[in-house]
Amino acid sequence: MSEKKIPYKIYLSEDEIPKAWYNMRADMKNKPAPLLNPGTGKPLTAEELSPIFCDELVAQELDENTPFIDIPDEIRNFYTMYRPSPLVRAYCLEEKLQTPAKIYYKFEGNNTSGSHKLNSAIAQAYYAKKQGLKGVTTETGAGQWGTALSMACSYFGLDCKVYMVKVSYEQKPFRREVMRTYGASVVPSPSETTEVGKKILAEHPGTTGSLGCAISEAVEVATKNPGYRYVLGSVLNQVLLHQSVIGLEAKAAMDKYDIKPDIIIGCAGGGSNLGGLIAPFMGEKLRGEADYRIIAVEPASCPSFTRGKFAYDFCDTGMICPLAKMYTLGSSFIPSANHAGGLRFHGMSSTLSQLYHDGYMEATSVEQTSVFEAAEQFARVEGILPAPESSHAIRAAINEALKCKETGEEKTILFGLTGTGYFDLVAYEKFHNGEMTDEIPTDEQLQASFAKLPKVDA
Amino acid sequence: MSEKKIPYKIYLSEDEIPKAWYNMRADMKNKPAPLLNPGTGKPLTAEELSPIFCDELVAQELDENTPFIDIPDEIRNFYTMYRPSPLVRAYCLEEKLQTPAKIYYKFEGNNTSGSHKLNSAIAQAYYAKKQGLKGVTTETGAGQWGTALSMACSYFGLDCKVYMVKVSYEQKPFRREVMRTYGASVVPSPSETTEVGKKILAEHPGTTGSLGCAISEAVEVATKNPGYRYVLGSVLNQVLLHQSVIGLEAKAAMDKYDIKPDIIIGCAGGGSNLGGLIAPFMGEKLRGEADYRIIAVEPASCPSFTRGKFAYDFCDTGMICPLAKMYTLGSSFIPSANHAGGLRFHGMSSTLSQLYHDGYMEATSVEQTSVFEAAEQFARVEGILPAPESSHAIRAAINEALKCKETGEEKTILFGLTGTGYFDLVAYEKFHNGEMTDEIPTDEQLQASFAKLPKVDA
Repeated sequence: MSEKKIPYKIYLSEDEIPKAWYNMRADMKNKPAPLLNPGTGKPLTAEELSPIFCDELVAQELDENTPFIDIPDEIRNFYTMYRPSPLVRAYCLEEKLQTPAKIYYKFEGNNTSGSHKLNSAIAQAYYAKKQGLKGVTTETGAGQWGTALSMACSYFGLDCKVYMVKVSYEQKPFRREVMRTYGASVVPSPSETTEVGKKILAEHPGTTGSLGCAISEAVEVATKNPGYRYVLGSVLNQVLLHQSVIGLEAKAAMDKYDIKPDIIIGCAGGGSNLGGLIAPFMGEKLRGEADYRIIAVEPASCPSFTRGKFAYDFCDTGMICPLAKMYTLGSSFIPSANHAGGLRFHGMSSTLSQLYHDGYMEATSVEQTSVFEAAEQFARVEGILPAPESSHAIRAAINEALKCKETGEEKTILFGLTGTGYFDLVAYEKFHNGEMTDEIPTDEQLQASFAKLPKVDA
Repeated sequence: MSEKKIPYKIYLSEDEIPKAWYNMRADMKNKPAPLLNPGTGKPLTAEELSPIFCDELVAQELDENTPFIDIPDEIRNFYTMYRPSPLVRAYCLEEKLQTPAKIYYKFEGNNTSGSHKLNSAIAQAYYAKKQGLKGVTTETGAGQWGTALSMACSYFGLDCKVYMVKVSYEQKPFRREVMRTYGASVVPSPSETTEVGKKILAEHPGTTGSLGCAISEAVEVATKNPGYRYVLGSVLNQVLLHQSVIGLEAKAAMDKYDIKPDIIIGCAGGGSNLGGLIAPFMGEKLRGEADYRIIAVEPASCPSFTRGKFAYDFCDTGMICPLAKMYTLGSSFIPSANHAGGLRFHGMSSTLSQLYHDGYMEATSVEQTSVFEAAEQFARVEGILPAPESSHAIRAAINEALKCKETGEEKTILFGLTGTGYFDLVAYEKFHNGEMTDEIPTDEQLQASFAKLPKVDA
């Protein structure tokens, strides 16, 4: 360990905000499998993707060879409003746990969207504006992505239509007002405003929705309205690319103090935070320059990595999106009304799925009540009220730190604290009142869902 | 202006967190009038104050001569968890307004309490712990002070009982959950749990409460329970002392870049933020070393400075607290159900009142709808959703910047952005729906309230 005293919060200067995003795929020997056209079963071309996504984002999505992609000045200027984000040494948590482990977290919650989602939202809004579009549509789970996109669209003067997973819409009424403050329109999903929404409602009356449903609705609206494109806050390669700013900053901050993490931990819903946090570290691992234990943490109620199949599947419930090869619970799987709305996705980033499949990372699942125990413990000593999603990573980091306490190992742990829980107080209230439950899918449920996976030879 | 490029956010290092608070009273020729015992009409002694406040805080309250008071290491350690707070150059707001003015704000919202209140909460909890007390009681308006105190008490292992102004309790149910996360108990005020609460409820059935009521209840509970003391989040000299950390940091950051503000603006409820922000600047002004325009901004619905009387009055509605000489609307004045809960206090810090009376600062009042217009404008360009309280300062800062646009003057404006509005979305919703009103007291209302001021010869 370095002799330099490590402050509580390591801040880079604004000049040190990365000038390029890092594209992990460039260093992968086994590239992630391509998106397929569900009609033909063939890899999707840029032409086929361009009615859905902005042209420049399509290019980023398909680019698996360029390691660094320049961040346009307009985006870096916006980043400067809330970045660099702090890398925090969790001295108080270490003391509370009485662990010899050294715990660091990269805190992405100090902006009004409340999470890391803004990193990709501003990039996607920028490219939409550059292409001369009128607006964008999207889905949101916990509401963090929708808020981030509303802020980004407001900044560039774009219209923004958000389909919000119904369970979150109801549990987080205030999120809607934040989005309205930034001029967005918000619809609870599934809704009667789309064909696919009507179909899902007919088949599953009373459903609380899922990210998969909301994606279907947003894609339908984007493709039916001229001048609109769809944008997605997770899963896609382009999103992981933009989110690499998290890991690049974290690594630069650690390098300044000669800190090398032994274990890197991130929560995983679609993979945006995890893929961004680990990017430069995984790059070193892929190039054989360094080794790290990398752990994905998912909710036991929606365990794509730990209990899913590695197979081609639809990204959405309505089965109108491209097919992606990924760890999936099946696009027909609807998780229980878990409060960690942002982790309620049936699938997982193709890039992360390939890396997991190839043994470059581990995965673990944790139960909701134990996640909130960790959240409350963290809040009391570190002073930050964490989002339930982020608290999955806290749970796993505490577990690893407690193992170090048993073995006496002084491991260095880095985890991603993706956001704050100011809009998650309904869930905290349930936890305080002892009304929170751990709902885990049965094997039968999963088998039924796997049986509906599309048949693809690839 | 300096040739150095000024970043968006100026951060001091953790070593640069002030090592001592600055006590403005030491440089005042006309000291603020002493607190009086309402029974005897004589200045209160330390002995008389000690059943209400911790001993060390009593000493700070009465010390009008020591200019700098050391910040104990335990408090500086806690400060390090969320301080130094950034001084932000509002480049985007300037561009939006097309003003030649240079606008800076000291942002105190990047912590879970959501405001500057934590600066004094941790100090007061520390001294209570040091004295071996069991717990503390307090009132809270917007809920920011209560949250801050809950966090501070949790850190030092103290019990925390919070009386929350009923209108805020109802409009901000989630604030209660944050306080519970930190282990506090929260009661809506006025309540049936105290004698004074019962009396107020009998006289004003259906009242939405006020800070004055809540203070009465909290003081009663503290004085009736052994091992408890009362703590207050504003108004008092000790609170302004602790909050001087805001201004000291702001001035240090500005000095680094040779920036000298022409105008300093803060919202004013009881005066904690304003008194803290202006402290070192006012010190220079009092010592004749520099001049600044200093502007207090208050809600038109609760205009203590601009329409109040400079007189001795009770700090609380129940008339059980000491008498303070201050600008007051009368302790029987209950403001309309204004959403800026933190500014709903009938009086004002004695220190600030004396400075205002002696011409060292100005005051202005602004109406609520124009405050929310400014808040939304600010949120869209600066990316931070401001608290309604803070937005009073934003409104005044924008007004000054627009005057500069007319005159072409390149003035430098510094304002305090005291907190975030994540728990104020009910108010934002009313604003979006066009349901927000501006309720301003009539002259008759104020005259009736003034008629009830206590008769004191001083």
